[in-house]
Amino acid sequence: MDKESIIYGKNSITEALLSGNRQINKILISKSSNSDPKIQEIITLARSRGIIFQFVPREKFLIYSELPHQGIIAQISPVKYKELDEFLEDNNGFKSIVILDGVEDPHNVGSIIRTAVCAGYDAIILPSRRNAQVNATVEKASAGAINHIAIIQVNSLSHTIEKLKKHNYWIIAADAKGKDNYFDIDYCNMNFALIMGGEETGVSRNNLNKSDFVVKIPMLRNFNSLNVSNAASAIIYESVRQKLQTTKDSV
Amino acid sequence: MDKESIIYGKNSITEALLSGNRQINKILISKSSNSDPKIQEIITLARSRGIIFQFVPREKFLIYSELPHQGIIAQISPVKYKELDEFLEDNNGFKSIVILDGVEDPHNVGSIIRTAVCAGYDAIILPSRRNAQVNATVEKASAGAINHIAIIQVNSLSHTIEKLKKHNYWIIAADAKGKDNYFDIDYCNMNFALIMGGEETGVSRNNLNKSDFVVKIPMLRNFNSLNVSNAASAIIYESVRQKLQTTKDSV
Repeated sequence: MDKESIIYGKNSITEALLSGNRQINKILISKSSNSDPKIQEIITLARSRGIIFQFVPREKFLIYSELPHQGIIAQISPVKYKELDEFLEDNNGFKSIVILDGVEDPHNVGSIIRTAVCAGYDAIILPSRRNAQVNATVEKASAGAINHIAIIQVNSLSHTIEKLKKHNYWIIAADAKGKDNYFDIDYCNMNFALIMGGEETGVSRNNLNKSDFVVKIPMLRNFNSLNVSNAASAIIYESVRQKLQTTKDSV
Repeated sequence: MDKESIIYGKNSITEALLSGNRQINKILISKSSNSDPKIQEIITLARSRGIIFQFVPREKFLIYSELPHQGIIAQISPVKYKELDEFLEDNNGFKSIVILDGVEDPHNVGSIIRTAVCAGYDAIILPSRRNAQVNATVEKASAGAINHIAIIQVNSLSHTIEKLKKHNYWIIAADAKGKDNYFDIDYCNMNFALIMGGEETGVSRNNLNKSDFVVKIPMLRNFNSLNVSNAASAIIYESVRQKLQTTKDSV
């Protein structure tokens, strides 16, 4: 958790929860402060807004010992998330999206966002659990790209994928056991969402099953796999290549 | 500097220098130990072998205070570098190489090596100065890929490029101001070396001038550039796509 992207203390966190101006990714509560009535209020508020909170041993707060944290710290996002429904209202042209399904390393999240921005993609979707949230490390790794693309945080990827399909999106999952090579499918003239899975776990079984295509990146040597941000880059830029080369060919 | 990849103390460093069994990337010498005659001997040895040494303030050694370092520490490589000439002796099939020209971040170096291995590339060339060396951080970021590819350390990239050209390699540099899109050139049926430049500086002017092709990655939004390992991935996997799709088409 980056010190730059936290707020602390009972009052400021209550205020942030009430105002809704700050995107709160997670609230950490020292176990020893659990019985505090103000903290109980915060828990109720957080629960009503679907914000994750976690009780942690007092030792976890040692690194914040110079802050008057009162046993409570909230990790806030440097980015203002966009609502999926709002994003889907814009029907202007075909859209390209990256969905992150359990990407835990904030450096990977940041550099995937950076690549998506360079490639002219329209949105990044990430789940509110089991995925690194957009914090200061992600912001830095993205070289500021988080401010150049819609970032959408959702509670359920499964529902999100259903909704995207209803809005005429093709769902493409990247998986080492995929049927097609990623360059053998067509990314042009359609809305699509590319799902990239976590470093260890890959795309979840449930989301693989919902996908229209499961693509693999061919391995030319007997070696495990690419780093997820590099895998994303290969696929994302293949979609760019197809778009630019197709445009040129048809001129 | 990673603790896992160092040796320390006057005798062990002298021995490593004499035996030549360990690849020494850099020797750090505490300024306060400079006048020690044994240290002077080490400096002479290091100089004769072209190994970089650096005088650092005593405080730099504080993190090694639990080691009996005697004011001298050598950063060793976890990998056995291959000689360029030895690599070039193997004429079996077309070769693909990545040259790193000033890539400073060991995570980037590691993940470029990982991508190159996955893509079946044959070697990585890196200069002994102004580029991250293969240390434990690189090893980890490569997910162990450093053991699956020839890694060649050279003193002069300029001479290396000349030599590669004499051995029928095409030199392809990646640069934002490149003339061609990276997917508009042909990577098949030839030896080639792809030069990736440093995070801030890019490929050096001198090496750009020596290149047969300077390729760019198109930016579809007004945003600076990709992370270097993601840029490498896009280009490296384009070469894979061409090879695999061409093979398929010609069957």
